[in-house]
Amino acid sequence: MNVDYTYRVRVEHRPGQLARVLEAIAEAGGLVGDVTTCKLTRAFSIREVTVEVEDDDRARELGRAIDALESVEVEDCFDRALALHEGGKLTIEPVRRIEGVQDMRDVYTPGVARACEAIRDDPDAARRLTMIGRTVAICTNGTRVLGLGDIGPRAAMPVMEGKAVFYKQLAGISAMPILIDATDPEEFVETVVRIAPTFGGIHLEDIATPACFDIEAALIERLPQPVMHDDVHGTAVVALAAVMAACRSVGVDLGDVVVGQLGLGAAGYGIAGLMVDAGAQRVIAYDPSEEAHEHARGRGVEIVDDEDTVLAEARVLVATTGRAGSIDANRIREGQIVLALSNPDPEIDPEEAMGAGAAFASDGSTVNNVLGYPGMFRGALDAGAQEMSSEMKLAAARALAESGGDGDGLLPDPLDPSVHERVAEAVREAAAEHG
Amino acid sequence: MNVDYTYRVRVEHRPGQLARVLEAIAEAGGLVGDVTTCKLTRAFSIREVTVEVEDDDRARELGRAIDALESVEVEDCFDRALALHEGGKLTIEPVRRIEGVQDMRDVYTPGVARACEAIRDDPDAARRLTMIGRTVAICTNGTRVLGLGDIGPRAAMPVMEGKAVFYKQLAGISAMPILIDATDPEEFVETVVRIAPTFGGIHLEDIATPACFDIEAALIERLPQPVMHDDVHGTAVVALAAVMAACRSVGVDLGDVVVGQLGLGAAGYGIAGLMVDAGAQRVIAYDPSEEAHEHARGRGVEIVDDEDTVLAEARVLVATTGRAGSIDANRIREGQIVLALSNPDPEIDPEEAMGAGAAFASDGSTVNNVLGYPGMFRGALDAGAQEMSSEMKLAAARALAESGGDGDGLLPDPLDPSVHERVAEAVREAAAEHG
Repeated sequence: MNVDYTYRVRVEHRPGQLARVLEAIAEAGGLVGDVTTCKLTRAFSIREVTVEVEDDDRARELGRAIDALESVEVEDCFDRALALHEGGKLTIEPVRRIEGVQDMRDVYTPGVARACEAIRDDPDAARRLTMIGRTVAICTNGTRVLGLGDIGPRAAMPVMEGKAVFYKQLAGISAMPILIDATDPEEFVETVVRIAPTFGGIHLEDIATPACFDIEAALIERLPQPVMHDDVHGTAVVALAAVMAACRSVGVDLGDVVVGQLGLGAAGYGIAGLMVDAGAQRVIAYDPSEEAHEHARGRGVEIVDDEDTVLAEARVLVATTGRAGSIDANRIREGQIVLALSNPDPEIDPEEAMGAGAAFASDGSTVNNVLGYPGMFRGALDAGAQEMSSEMKLAAARALAESGGDGDGLLPDPLDPSVHERVAEAVREAAAEHG
Repeated sequence: MNVDYTYRVRVEHRPGQLARVLEAIAEAGGLVGDVTTCKLTRAFSIREVTVEVEDDDRARELGRAIDALESVEVEDCFDRALALHEGGKLTIEPVRRIEGVQDMRDVYTPGVARACEAIRDDPDAARRLTMIGRTVAICTNGTRVLGLGDIGPRAAMPVMEGKAVFYKQLAGISAMPILIDATDPEEFVETVVRIAPTFGGIHLEDIATPACFDIEAALIERLPQPVMHDDVHGTAVVALAAVMAACRSVGVDLGDVVVGQLGLGAAGYGIAGLMVDAGAQRVIAYDPSEEAHEHARGRGVEIVDDEDTVLAEARVLVATTGRAGSIDANRIREGQIVLALSNPDPEIDPEEAMGAGAAFASDGSTVNNVLGYPGMFRGALDAGAQEMSSEMKLAAARALAESGGDGDGLLPDPLDPSVHERVAEAVREAAAEHG
């Protein structure tokens, strides 16, 4: 996996000096990101240049190469992501500070007893008088984290904190990572059920298949609040939105076409099932592992015998196989809509697919989960919903598909807060209608 | 339990008008708290007057009485504590906002994988690269909350949020309430053990005796991080600090005197045990419940047969019986140090005890747990301690006793942040020495 390094370099302040540094970086195969000016005098400037390199060894080599340039000095060089993780990414803060005796009386003893009694007498009051109504637990056992696999709960924490950062920044939700040291589904479920009173919603994250399916099903059954495994349903919502936006830009109606799904892992299973709910004419899927078939069939997906059938019959092709470059360009059909979602490298390069006749093609970079879950849980919590229903997921996908650019088939920028407001609003309405 | 109501009143702006309102409040038996001026014109003023009243009915009566005054109008009247609990008291926030593509790359994919790998390869790195190293879970099942008893986990949330507010404001620690729907000690312990990887420390709160003893002991044995039941040990530390400060003001050495403990509930047990650790000459205790005796004996406390023996022999008398007014003034010994800690009403009024010959007397209002736990956990986390040892508790008590006023036997103001820095520093040093 590539790494971003930041080089703090001192160069003479005259034309062409920074360019020399960037040339040296390019020669070493580094991709330049942000360039920030830290200090500027008449004689010299200090810049932080961020570079994507292949690994730590290349990063060190590159540092030496820059430093070797005449009148250029590397003052510092650091792994940017690691540096920015120092101290963690979340903090739990008081809504109001306590400034004096009256504040103490209000939010601690004796006043706090009033709020406790109100909740004891009416459990629903907890939504109003505590943080619970706007708080989600992000629960993981760390058994399937990014491309890293089973790294355990604690090593998964940076991912959970990142998810929580987006929850607050984009949708105003307090999200608390909960690392669960249990791989057995029953133990995992028991643990979440026992701590569930603390949270308005339960977001499951980075749990390996097939355990994740049983865990989610059991929690949905046992808990009175919305439960959603983001790797399954969050991904499905955003992928469906991408397909909807692509269909619109191509002028195709999802109800008139066959959707083909390659790969029935957590994401593929979620996508195929939601395509059925979205009213695709047919949804066919292929996965070499038979284990995955039953769940998918239960959701109305037709399992076919080989990849060829999917490639040949699908007008909309979605691939989540984890096998980079596995779709040959000459298998692409004229007018096909292709989403090759495996990360970091897709099953087929979008440009190559377009060259082979696809009407629309895109890779995993466009299907960013951050577009889905914050607004979805915000809408569900605002509505007081007891589940994250299929209607709510479809509403979220439609809202996203309609928030994109100028009919170019692309989804909106996840850092645009208005997108999440629209998703939340759509989910809230769907919850109210079908709740 | 008394209630604070705030009355928003409009009065003519000339001398004596506010006094009339306060007189009316006094006549109705209300105790005036803060008076805030909200609006001031030449003709009238609008003030918010906060009043402690007996209950909701009295509050309404008082509102009518104020409104009946000539040229006085009550514009609003609300239960202050409830109003201030709206929306809850905590929020989980990003340490840094994500502003653009590079931020995304740093704290989410792909950068986040670097932090995950670092922790996978060196689990200790989690203390540095995540929030874990400065985060405490406040765990409760709500079986003994304030004077309200067993109100369940969710109704206990306002207390837990209040504790967490102090953690951040006073000691910079992120504290997350965890409500556990389990009264069985084993289930409770299992749950905490499974989610423990998320937290640097485990703070137990408002769990009924005797289950709380077994729960704490099991968690201390099974977890590699500090675990402390605040109702036992936090209270003990602050009570010991109060006794130390009182001894100093009276000119007595704790090592030369008999400490008598009345009541061996969670607090009494913790106090008696810590008095032994602090080197009191003898610690004797009485509790009618035999269940409480064994635990206390295990901590080196002598159990005596009646309250009379304790009252007659103790130079330092600590009462946590929950029985208001149960100590008769004529039982107080000349020169005795008396801490009558039951809330809201003590076993003996401090003034009465002083009148009866006590050298120092105080009630529960001086022994505020908020003085202890924030700095204690801060010190333990900073030191990377694996437990909250007796040495650390004693160090905290000494730091508090030395932070008080001018040898008047009183403890410092809990809202003074320097107090918590001193406690943290003392605990950190003790952990380093004995760790």
